Amino acid sequence: MKYLIVDTSSRTLLLSASNGKGDVSLSLKDLDRHGAILAVVIKQFLDLLEISPADLDFLGAGVGPGSLTGLRVGLSTIKGISLPYNIPVVPFNSFDPLAEGICFDDFVICRKGREGHFYWRTYLKKRPGETLFSSIVEIKEKLDKSIVVCSERNEELVDFQDYRTFLLEPSPVLMRKIVLEAFRSGKILSGLDLEPVYLQKSVAEINWDGRNSRKT
Amino acid sequence: MKYLIVDTSSRTLLLSASNGKGDVSLSLKDLDRHGAILAVVIKQFLDLLEISPADLDFLGAGVGPGSLTGLRVGLSTIKGISLPYNIPVVPFNSFDPLAEGICFDDFVICRKGREGHFYWRTYLKKRPGETLFSSIVEIKEKLDKSIVVCSERNEELVDFQDYRTFLLEPSPVLMRKIVLEAFRSGKILSGLDLEPVYLQKSVAEINWDGRNSRKT
Repeated sequence: MKYLIVDTSSRTLLLSASNGKGDVSLSLKDLDRHGAILAVVIKQFLDLLEISPADLDFLGAGVGPGSLTGLRVGLSTIKGISLPYNIPVVPFNSFDPLAEGICFDDFVICRKGREGHFYWRTYLKKRPGETLFSSIVEIKEKLDKSIVVCSERNEELVDFQDYRTFLLEPSPVLMRKIVLEAFRSGKILSGLDLEPVYLQKSVAEINWDGRNSRKT
Repeated sequence: MKYLIVDTSSRTLLLSASNGKGDVSLSLKDLDRHGAILAVVIKQFLDLLEISPADLDFLGAGVGPGSLTGLRVGLSTIKGISLPYNIPVVPFNSFDPLAEGICFDDFVICRKGREGHFYWRTYLKKRPGETLFSSIVEIKEKLDKSIVVCSERNEELVDFQDYRTFLLEPSPVLMRKIVLEAFRSGKILSGLDLEPVYLQKSVAEINWDGRNSRKT
Protein backbone atom coordinates (compact mmCIF):
# COMPACT_ATOMS: atom_id res chain seq x y z
CA MET A 1 0.00 0.00 0.00
CA LYS A 2 1.44 3.35 -1.08
CA TYR A 3 0.31 6.40 0.86
CA LEU A 4 1.16 9.88 2.06
CA ILE A 5 -0.33 11.31 5.27
CA VAL A 6 0.11 14.86 6.50
CA ASP A 7 -1.02 16.94 9.47
CA THR A 8 -0.18 20.66 9.52
CA SER A 9 -2.71 21.78 12.11
CA SER A 10 -0.22 22.41 14.94
CA ARG A 11 3.32 23.73 15.35
CA THR A 12 4.52 20.17 14.71
CA LEU A 13 4.30 19.10 11.09
CA LEU A 14 3.66 15.33 10.91
CA LEU A 15 4.30 13.24 7.81
CA SER A 16 4.06 9.51 7.21
CA ALA A 17 4.54 7.82 3.84
CA SER A 18 5.12 4.35 2.43
CA ASN A 19 6.00 2.75 -0.89
CA GLY A 20 4.46 -0.56 0.19
CA LYS A 21 7.78 -1.98 1.38
CA GLY A 22 9.47 0.68 3.47
CA ASP A 23 8.09 3.68 5.26
CA VAL A 24 8.96 7.13 6.53
CA SER A 25 7.81 8.84 9.75
CA LEU A 26 8.69 12.47 10.24
CA SER A 27 7.96 15.17 12.78
CA LEU A 28 9.18 18.76 12.33
CA LYS A 29 8.55 20.72 15.53
CA ASP A 30 8.57 24.52 15.86
CA LEU A 31 10.19 25.19 12.48
CA ASP A 32 7.32 27.67 11.90
CA ARG A 33 7.52 27.48 8.14
CA HIS A 34 4.94 24.85 7.11
CA GLY A 35 4.15 26.93 4.02
CA ALA A 36 7.76 27.02 2.82
CA ILE A 37 8.64 23.49 3.95
CA LEU A 38 5.72 21.16 3.26
CA ALA A 39 5.92 20.72 -0.53
CA VAL A 40 9.72 20.44 -0.36
CA VAL A 41 9.59 17.73 2.31
CA ILE A 42 6.89 15.77 0.47
CA LYS A 43 8.96 15.82 -2.72
CA GLN A 44 12.10 14.72 -0.82
CA PHE A 45 10.29 11.79 0.80
CA LEU A 46 8.54 10.58 -2.33
CA ASP A 47 12.01 10.63 -3.96
CA LEU A 48 13.50 8.63 -1.05
CA LEU A 49 10.66 6.11 -1.41
CA GLU A 50 11.21 6.09 -5.19
CA ILE A 51 7.54 6.79 -5.96
CA SER A 52 5.66 9.67 -7.53
CA PRO A 53 2.26 11.18 -6.58
CA ALA A 54 0.55 9.17 -9.34
CA ASP A 55 1.58 5.92 -7.59
CA LEU A 56 -0.23 6.73 -4.32
CA ASP A 57 -3.17 4.51 -3.32
CA PHE A 58 -4.49 7.09 -0.89
CA LEU A 59 -3.71 10.31 0.94
CA GLY A 60 -4.39 11.20 4.57
CA ALA A 61 -5.06 14.71 5.85
CA GLY A 62 -5.47 16.10 9.34
CA VAL A 63 -8.42 18.48 9.03
CA GLY A 64 -7.92 20.29 12.34
CA PRO A 65 -8.86 21.92 14.60
CA GLY A 66 -5.78 24.12 14.87
CA SER A 67 -3.71 26.67 13.00
CA LEU A 68 -5.82 28.28 10.25
CA THR A 69 -2.80 29.00 8.05
CA GLY A 70 -1.34 25.53 8.72
CA LEU A 71 -4.61 23.89 7.66
CA ARG A 72 -4.82 26.03 4.51
CA VAL A 73 -1.28 25.01 3.51
CA GLY A 74 -1.78 21.33 4.34
CA LEU A 75 -5.20 20.81 2.80
CA SER A 76 -4.35 22.82 -0.34
CA THR A 77 -1.26 20.66 -0.82
CA ILE A 78 -3.21 17.42 -0.33
CA LYS A 79 -5.93 18.62 -2.72
CA GLY A 80 -3.22 19.57 -5.23
CA ILE A 81 -1.84 16.03 -5.15
CA SER A 82 -5.24 14.32 -5.07
CA LEU A 83 -7.12 16.11 -7.86
CA PRO A 84 -4.93 15.44 -10.94
CA TYR A 85 -4.86 11.69 -10.22
CA ASN A 86 -8.20 11.37 -8.40
CA ILE A 87 -6.48 9.86 -5.34
CA PRO A 88 -8.90 9.17 -2.46
CA VAL A 89 -8.31 11.06 0.79
CA VAL A 90 -8.76 9.84 4.37
CA PRO A 91 -9.61 12.89 6.53
CA PHE A 92 -9.04 12.70 10.28
CA ASN A 93 -9.60 14.95 13.28
CA SER A 94 -6.14 16.23 14.26
CA PHE A 95 -6.83 15.43 17.94
CA ASP A 96 -7.33 11.70 17.29
CA PRO A 97 -3.64 10.75 16.83
CA LEU A 98 -2.90 12.64 20.08
CA ALA A 99 -5.68 10.76 21.88
CA GLU A 100 -4.28 7.45 20.62
CA GLY A 101 -1.17 7.88 22.79
CA ILE A 102 -3.04 8.54 26.07
CA CYS A 103 -3.48 5.84 28.70
CA PHE A 104 -6.11 7.56 30.90
CA ASP A 105 -9.79 6.63 30.67
CA ASP A 106 -11.29 10.12 30.70
CA PHE A 107 -9.39 13.09 29.32
CA VAL A 108 -9.74 16.27 27.32
CA ILE A 109 -7.36 17.51 24.63
CA CYS A 110 -6.86 21.27 24.39
CA ARG A 111 -5.09 23.33 21.73
CA LYS A 112 -4.74 27.11 21.87
CA GLY A 113 -6.82 29.18 19.44
CA ARG A 114 -6.92 32.97 19.52
CA GLU A 115 -6.09 34.77 22.81
CA GLY A 116 -7.96 33.30 25.76
CA HIS A 117 -9.60 30.59 23.67
CA PHE A 118 -8.99 26.90 23.07
CA TYR A 119 -10.08 24.17 20.72
CA TRP A 120 -11.03 21.19 22.88
CA ARG A 121 -12.55 17.75 22.78
CA THR A 122 -13.38 15.37 25.60
CA TYR A 123 -12.65 11.67 25.35
CA LEU A 124 -14.73 9.72 27.89
CA LYS A 125 -13.76 6.05 28.07
CA LYS A 126 -11.57 6.96 25.06
CA ARG A 127 -14.67 7.81 22.91
CA PRO A 128 -14.43 11.27 21.32
CA GLY A 129 -17.06 13.90 22.06
CA GLU A 130 -17.85 16.98 19.96
CA THR A 131 -14.95 19.20 18.87
CA LEU A 132 -15.51 22.69 20.31
CA PHE A 133 -14.03 26.18 20.41
CA SER A 134 -14.53 28.11 23.67
CA SER A 135 -12.98 30.59 26.06
CA ILE A 136 -10.95 29.20 28.98
CA VAL A 137 -13.71 30.31 31.36
CA GLU A 138 -16.40 28.42 29.41
CA ILE A 139 -14.25 25.29 29.24
CA LYS A 140 -13.57 25.27 32.99
CA GLU A 141 -17.28 25.66 33.72
CA LYS A 142 -17.93 22.44 31.83
CA LEU A 143 -14.91 20.35 32.89
CA ASP A 144 -15.12 18.19 35.99
CA LYS A 145 -11.98 18.36 38.15
CA SER A 146 -11.50 14.59 37.82
CA ILE A 147 -10.65 14.84 34.12
CA VAL A 148 -7.03 14.92 32.87
CA VAL A 149 -6.25 17.93 30.66
CA CYS A 150 -3.82 17.13 27.82
CA SER A 151 -1.98 19.43 25.42
CA GLU A 152 1.14 19.39 23.23
CA ARG A 153 2.54 22.51 24.88
CA ASN A 154 3.54 23.18 28.48
CA GLU A 155 2.63 26.87 28.18
CA GLU A 156 -0.96 25.86 27.33
CA LEU A 157 -1.23 23.60 30.38
CA VAL A 158 -0.41 26.56 32.64
CA ASP A 159 -4.01 27.73 32.10
CA PHE A 160 -5.24 24.45 33.65
CA GLN A 161 -3.15 24.28 36.82
CA ASP A 162 -6.18 23.37 38.92
CA TYR A 163 -6.49 20.11 36.91
CA ARG A 164 -4.27 17.06 36.50
CA THR A 165 -2.36 17.80 33.29
CA PHE A 166 -0.46 15.67 30.79
CA LEU A 167 1.96 16.78 28.08
CA LEU A 168 1.54 15.10 24.67
CA GLU A 169 4.14 14.40 21.98
CA PRO A 170 2.56 14.43 18.49
CA SER A 171 3.58 11.19 16.76
CA PRO A 172 3.59 10.39 13.03
CA VAL A 173 3.40 6.67 13.96
CA LEU A 174 0.11 7.09 15.87
CA MET A 175 -1.17 9.32 13.04
CA ARG A 176 -0.46 6.53 10.55
CA LYS A 177 -2.20 3.97 12.80
CA ILE A 178 -5.39 6.08 12.90
CA VAL A 179 -5.38 6.67 9.15
CA LEU A 180 -4.70 3.04 8.17
CA GLU A 181 -7.63 1.94 10.37
CA ALA A 182 -9.89 4.59 8.81
CA PHE A 183 -8.80 3.63 5.27
CA ARG A 184 -9.50 -0.06 5.94
CA SER A 185 -13.00 0.75 7.17
CA GLY A 186 -13.66 2.75 3.99
CA LYS A 187 -13.66 6.28 5.46
CA ILE A 188 -12.48 7.96 2.26
CA LEU A 189 -13.64 10.92 0.22
CA SER A 190 -12.65 12.75 -2.96
CA GLY A 191 -10.03 15.51 -2.69
CA LEU A 192 -12.82 17.87 -3.87
CA ASP A 193 -14.78 17.24 -0.66
CA LEU A 194 -11.86 17.72 1.74
CA GLU A 195 -12.72 20.46 4.26
CA PRO A 196 -10.97 21.89 7.31
CA VAL A 197 -12.47 22.00 10.81
CA TYR A 198 -11.95 25.71 11.41
CA LEU A 199 -14.43 26.37 14.27
CA GLN A 200 -13.12 29.91 14.79
CA LYS A 201 -13.05 32.86 12.44
CA SER A 202 -9.67 34.30 11.54
CA VAL A 203 -8.77 37.78 12.76
CA ALA A 204 -9.20 39.02 9.15
CA GLU A 205 -12.76 37.62 9.08
CA ILE A 206 -13.61 39.15 12.46
CA ASN A 207 -12.32 42.53 11.25
CA TRP A 208 -14.33 42.20 8.02
CA ASP A 209 -17.51 41.42 9.94
CA GLY A 210 -16.84 44.42 12.19
CA ARG A 211 -16.40 46.78 9.25
CA ASN A 212 -19.47 45.40 7.47
CA SER A 213 -21.77 45.65 10.47
CA ARG A 214 -20.73 49.29 10.99
CA LYS A 215 -21.58 50.09 7.34
CA THR A 216 -25.11 48.65 7.44
CA MET B 1 21.49 23.39 21.80
CA LYS B 2 22.25 22.35 18.22
CA TYR B 3 22.75 18.65 17.61
CA LEU B 4 22.50 15.79 15.14
CA ILE B 5 21.91 12.21 16.30
CA VAL B 6 21.94 9.14 14.06
CA ASP B 7 21.47 5.39 14.47
CA THR B 8 22.05 3.15 11.44
CA SER B 9 22.46 -0.15 13.26
CA SER B 10 19.12 -1.67 12.24
CA ARG B 11 16.83 -1.69 9.21
CA THR B 12 15.28 1.50 10.59
CA LEU B 13 17.44 4.58 10.16
CA LEU B 14 16.80 7.01 13.03
CA LEU B 15 17.69 10.68 12.92
CA SER B 16 17.06 13.52 15.36
CA ALA B 17 18.35 17.06 14.98
CA SER B 18 17.76 20.50 16.43
CA ASN B 19 18.79 24.09 15.74
CA GLY B 20 18.09 25.07 19.36
CA LYS B 21 14.56 26.31 18.60
CA GLY B 22 12.88 23.66 16.48
CA ASP B 23 13.64 20.00 15.98
CA VAL B 24 13.33 17.11 13.56
CA SER B 25 12.58 13.46 14.31
CA LEU B 26 12.83 10.99 11.47
CA SER B 27 12.54 7.24 11.04
CA LEU B 28 13.15 5.54 7.69
CA LYS B 29 12.13 1.88 7.90
CA ASP B 30 13.13 -0.87 5.46
CA LEU B 31 14.41 1.46 2.75
CA ASP B 32 17.56 -0.72 2.72
CA ARG B 33 19.81 2.01 1.38
CA HIS B 34 21.41 3.62 4.45
CA GLY B 35 24.62 4.06 2.45
CA ALA B 36 22.94 5.97 -0.37
CA ILE B 37 20.47 7.84 1.83
CA LEU B 38 22.21 8.92 5.04
CA ALA B 39 24.37 11.84 3.86
CA VAL B 40 21.53 13.12 1.64
CA VAL B 41 19.03 13.09 4.50
CA ILE B 42 21.47 14.76 6.91
CA LYS B 43 22.10 17.54 4.38
CA GLN B 44 18.36 18.02 3.79
CA PHE B 45 17.62 18.30 7.51
CA LEU B 46 20.49 20.65 8.32
CA ASP B 47 19.14 22.81 5.46
CA LEU B 48 15.58 22.67 6.89
CA LEU B 49 16.97 23.69 10.28
CA GLU B 50 19.04 26.42 8.58
CA ILE B 51 22.30 25.30 10.22
CA SER B 52 25.55 23.81 8.92
CA PRO B 53 27.76 21.07 10.45
CA ALA B 54 30.10 23.72 11.93
CA ASP B 55 27.20 25.04 14.06
CA LEU B 56 26.59 21.73 15.87
CA ASP B 57 27.27 21.61 19.63
CA PHE B 58 27.44 17.82 19.61
CA LEU B 59 26.73 14.69 17.60
CA GLY B 60 25.12 11.44 18.74
CA ALA B 61 25.90 8.03 17.28
CA GLY B 62 24.36 4.61 17.87
CA VAL B 63 27.37 2.27 18.06
CA GLY B 64 25.44 -0.99 17.71
CA PRO B 65 25.16 -3.88 18.03
CA GLY B 66 23.54 -4.55 14.65
CA SER B 67 24.15 -4.34 10.92
CA LEU B 68 27.91 -4.23 10.22
CA THR B 69 27.46 -2.26 6.99
CA GLY B 70 24.93 0.06 8.62
CA LEU B 71 27.35 0.83 11.46
CA ARG B 72 30.22 1.45 9.02
CA VAL B 73 28.10 3.94 7.07
CA GLY B 74 26.72 5.66 10.17
CA LEU B 75 29.93 5.95 12.17
CA SER B 76 32.02 6.99 9.14
CA THR B 77 29.51 9.74 8.43
CA ILE B 78 29.50 10.96 12.04
CA LYS B 79 33.32 10.88 12.15
CA GLY B 80 33.36 12.80 8.86
CA ILE B 81 31.21 15.54 10.36
CA SER B 82 32.97 15.54 13.75
CA LEU B 83 36.66 15.62 12.76
CA PRO B 84 36.93 18.84 10.68
CA TYR B 85 35.21 20.90 13.42
CA ASN B 86 36.25 18.81 16.45
CA ILE B 87 32.58 18.32 17.44
CA PRO B 88 32.17 16.07 20.51
CA VAL B 89 30.26 12.81 20.03
CA VAL B 90 27.85 11.09 22.42
CA PRO B 91 28.02 7.34 21.69
CA PHE B 92 25.14 5.11 22.80
CA ASN B 93 24.32 1.41 22.72
CA SER B 94 21.69 1.01 19.99
CA PHE B 95 19.52 -1.15 22.28
CA ASP B 96 19.10 1.61 24.88
CA PRO B 97 16.54 3.74 22.98
CA LEU B 98 14.53 0.55 22.39
CA ALA B 99 14.70 -0.31 26.10
CA GLU B 100 13.47 3.19 26.97
CA GLY B 101 10.06 2.45 25.45
CA ILE B 102 9.44 -0.79 27.38
CA CYS B 103 7.17 -0.89 30.42
CA PHE B 104 8.13 -4.36 31.76
CA ASP B 105 10.52 -4.78 34.70
CA ASP B 106 12.65 -7.61 33.31
CA PHE B 107 13.18 -8.06 29.61
CA VAL B 108 15.73 -8.93 26.97
CA ILE B 109 16.21 -7.19 23.64
CA CYS B 110 17.24 -9.39 20.68
CA ARG B 111 18.39 -8.40 17.22
CA LYS B 112 19.25 -10.90 14.47
CA GLY B 113 22.93 -11.32 13.56
CA ARG B 114 24.14 -13.95 11.10
CA GLU B 115 21.99 -17.08 10.53
CA GLY B 116 20.91 -18.70 13.80
CA HIS B 117 22.56 -15.98 15.93
CA PHE B 118 21.35 -12.93 17.81
CA TYR B 119 22.76 -9.89 19.50
CA TRP B 120 21.07 -9.65 22.90
CA ARG B 121 21.07 -7.78 26.16
CA THR B 122 19.08 -8.35 29.31
CA TYR B 123 17.55 -5.47 31.24
CA LEU B 124 16.71 -6.55 34.80
CA LYS B 125 14.76 -3.90 36.73
CA LYS B 126 15.49 -1.80 33.60
CA ARG B 127 19.29 -1.88 34.26
CA PRO B 128 21.27 -3.07 31.22
CA GLY B 129 23.46 -6.17 31.40
CA GLU B 130 26.34 -7.07 29.09
CA THR B 131 25.74 -6.90 25.32
CA LEU B 132 26.30 -10.38 23.86
CA PHE B 133 26.32 -12.29 20.59
CA SER B 134 25.18 -15.92 20.79
CA SER B 135 23.34 -18.69 18.98
CA ILE B 136 19.60 -19.06 19.65
CA VAL B 137 20.31 -22.31 21.54
CA GLU B 138 22.84 -20.61 23.83
CA ILE B 139 20.48 -17.71 24.51
CA LYS B 140 17.57 -19.98 25.43
CA GLU B 141 19.77 -21.94 27.82
CA LYS B 142 20.42 -18.73 29.72
CA LEU B 143 16.99 -17.07 29.58
CA ASP B 144 14.44 -17.76 32.28
CA LYS B 145 10.92 -18.33 30.91
CA SER B 146 9.60 -15.43 33.01
CA ILE B 147 11.48 -12.84 30.96
CA VAL B 148 9.84 -10.89 28.13
CA VAL B 149 11.68 -11.17 24.80
CA CYS B 150 11.59 -7.94 22.75
CA SER B 151 12.61 -7.28 19.15
CA GLU B 152 11.85 -4.78 16.36
CA ARG B 153 10.80 -7.52 13.96
CA ASN B 154 7.99 -10.07 14.16
CA GLU B 155 10.00 -12.61 12.16
CA GLU B 156 12.71 -12.54 14.85
CA LEU B 157 10.20 -13.14 17.65
CA VAL B 158 9.11 -16.38 15.92
CA ASP B 159 12.32 -17.96 17.28
CA PHE B 160 11.12 -17.21 20.84
CA GLN B 161 7.56 -18.55 20.73
CA ASP B 162 8.02 -20.33 24.07
CA TYR B 163 8.50 -16.89 25.74
CA ARG B 164 6.26 -13.87 26.22
CA THR B 165 7.25 -11.60 23.32
CA PHE B 166 6.88 -7.89 22.62
CA LEU B 167 7.31 -6.03 19.34
CA LEU B 168 9.28 -2.76 19.52
CA GLU B 169 9.00 0.35 17.34
CA PRO B 170 12.36 2.17 17.08
CA SER B 171 11.73 5.82 17.98
CA PRO B 172 13.88 8.85 17.18
CA VAL B 173 12.23 10.65 20.12
CA LEU B 174 13.40 8.03 22.65
CA MET B 175 16.84 8.04 20.98
CA ARG B 176 17.05 11.81 21.49
CA LYS B 177 15.98 11.44 25.14
CA ILE B 178 18.80 8.93 25.83
CA VAL B 179 21.42 11.07 24.09
CA LEU B 180 20.41 14.36 25.73
CA GLU B 181 20.66 12.69 29.15
CA ALA B 182 24.09 11.24 28.28
CA PHE B 183 25.32 14.60 26.95
CA ARG B 184 24.18 16.39 30.11
CA SER B 185 26.06 13.90 32.28
CA GLY B 186 29.23 14.50 30.23
CA LYS B 187 29.41 11.16 28.38
CA ILE B 188 31.19 12.53 25.34
CA LEU B 189 34.28 11.57 23.35
CA SER B 190 36.22 12.80 20.34
CA GLY B 191 35.14 11.62 16.90
CA LEU B 192 38.56 9.94 16.68
CA ASP B 193 37.65 7.59 19.51
CA LEU B 194 34.23 6.59 18.18
CA GLU B 195 34.07 2.79 17.79
CA PRO B 196 31.34 0.35 16.80
CA VAL B 197 30.14 -2.56 18.95
CA TYR B 198 30.58 -5.27 16.32
CA LEU B 199 30.65 -8.44 18.52
CA GLN B 200 30.52 -10.72 15.47
CA LYS B 201 32.92 -11.08 12.56
CA SER B 202 31.62 -10.33 9.09
CA VAL B 203 31.29 -13.20 6.60
CA ALA B 204 34.32 -11.74 4.74
CA GLU B 205 36.39 -11.94 7.94
CA ILE B 206 35.25 -15.50 8.69
CA ASN B 207 36.18 -16.54 5.13
CA TRP B 208 39.56 -14.81 5.47
CA ASP B 209 40.28 -16.62 8.74
CA GLY B 210 39.28 -19.91 7.07
CA ARG B 211 41.61 -19.38 4.13
CA ASN B 212 44.48 -18.28 6.39
CA SER B 213 44.18 -21.23 8.79
CA ARG B 214 44.19 -23.67 5.83
CA LYS B 215 47.41 -22.08 4.50
CA THR B 216 49.35 -22.35 7.77
